[in-house]
Amino acid sequence: MFRYKLTIQYDGTGFHGWQRQDGLLTIQGCIENAVQQLVDTACHVQCSGRTDAGVHAYGQVAHVDVPKMFEGWVMRNALNFFLRTYNNRIVIQHVELVDQHFHARFHSKKRCYIYKIFNHPTPSPFEQNRSWHVIKPLNVENMQLGAQFLIGTHDFTTFRDSQCQASSPVKTMDMIHITSHEPYLELQFESKSFLHHQVRNIVGTLVLVGQGKWQAQHVQKALEAKDRRAGGPTAPAQGLYFIKVDY
Amino acid sequence: MFRYKLTIQYDGTGFHGWQRQDGLLTIQGCIENAVQQLVDTACHVQCSGRTDAGVHAYGQVAHVDVPKMFEGWVMRNALNFFLRTYNNRIVIQHVELVDQHFHARFHSKKRCYIYKIFNHPTPSPFEQNRSWHVIKPLNVENMQLGAQFLIGTHDFTTFRDSQCQASSPVKTMDMIHITSHEPYLELQFESKSFLHHQVRNIVGTLVLVGQGKWQAQHVQKALEAKDRRAGGPTAPAQGLYFIKVDY
Repeated sequence: MFRYKLTIQYDGTGFHGWQRQDGLLTIQGCIENAVQQLVDTACHVQCSGRTDAGVHAYGQVAHVDVPKMFEGWVMRNALNFFLRTYNNRIVIQHVELVDQHFHARFHSKKRCYIYKIFNHPTPSPFEQNRSWHVIKPLNVENMQLGAQFLIGTHDFTTFRDSQCQASSPVKTMDMIHITSHEPYLELQFESKSFLHHQVRNIVGTLVLVGQGKWQAQHVQKALEAKDRRAGGPTAPAQGLYFIKVDY
Repeated sequence: MFRYKLTIQYDGTGFHGWQRQDGLLTIQGCIENAVQQLVDTACHVQCSGRTDAGVHAYGQVAHVDVPKMFEGWVMRNALNFFLRTYNNRIVIQHVELVDQHFHARFHSKKRCYIYKIFNHPTPSPFEQNRSWHVIKPLNVENMQLGAQFLIGTHDFTTFRDSQCQASSPVKTMDMIHITSHEPYLELQFESKSFLHHQVRNIVGTLVLVGQGKWQAQHVQKALEAKDRRAGGPTAPAQGLYFIKVDY
């Protein structure tokens, strides 16, 4: 068997998330079907981190074992040919033959997510399903202040979904960087790994700060409460992008 | 009657262009329906320049006469409320009460279009219906050289659709500016007015230059031929954006 590392982009709109589910359109299901069409064998595609319904990816990474050797660009073009069925909503950007021991999930050293907000009185036709439309003007400086309380190693129970299956709520947030190019706002998150809904729950909370409903200091209190009910709402899936994984 | 100037954004995907046609989904049809829902009277919405099926707008301008006076932001929000039926694919950005003599089409002094190209070996999930995907690398400098032959006042018959209803093929191109932020390419066009398919026919021709199939000088020969058959192909509608109108 040969192991390949796939770098994948997708527009998550209309997909039931990454994970294969019988009878539902999922990213994993579509890619596994494409691989099966290529090599005539059912293969498991293992991703770096599963994404929820509606979440997008610029640089999701996965690995797959196939019984045949290909040049990277040949396999990339062949998979994209089969994926065209889905109107290029899933595109393989890069394929690379890797060591048998490479593991997309367990070997990742750092993951990066970006959350996009469209902060404008009226919606944009070009931002539908691509960002969170927030009408009230956001104070970016205050959001940045609030975010600073979350940098470092903490118990993130407040920002963790009740369905999260991670063994521990303790994670290390390396970076939260907020940039504004009006009317667009981008919140960039870097960490070795994330809890389920961690980014979306933090964004929902920081937007409360940006709207002036919360003081920046309130974020620290919420974190220390170690209680999901102390945090802000979960920001919608459509603003979230899985950007890249470092190995 | 009160005359209002509307500034309009739309994602042209799935619409049969601007012009109202019975039984088809059109931009004009949707906006006229929204105005009718607001004021209970059928009203004609006159645009600055009609767009074809699949063409987008960041700043289309139109005027409409209605029997009732509104504050601009109230009318904007009300129209957007009725337009939500179309999933925010049409959004009114601005509404302004104007002089009865203002005419969106006849009073425009300058129009600006941008054509977007995604120049990359693989497609992008986020560029579907939003740009022209050109696989072969484009030489931007050569495209810019070719574009220079089209600046100024010329007979643009070579770049005019056979169905074009303009009385004369002579137009003045004020600017063609090409910028590259790899893998994105934007071609910006400014002129008082454009012939039907003029921008898309020019883009199709400049892409031949960018791909090395044509020398830049060949653009001049094509222009001088005053024959549509001497020009390059028509670039697809999905890359074209109507950006703004100056009055």
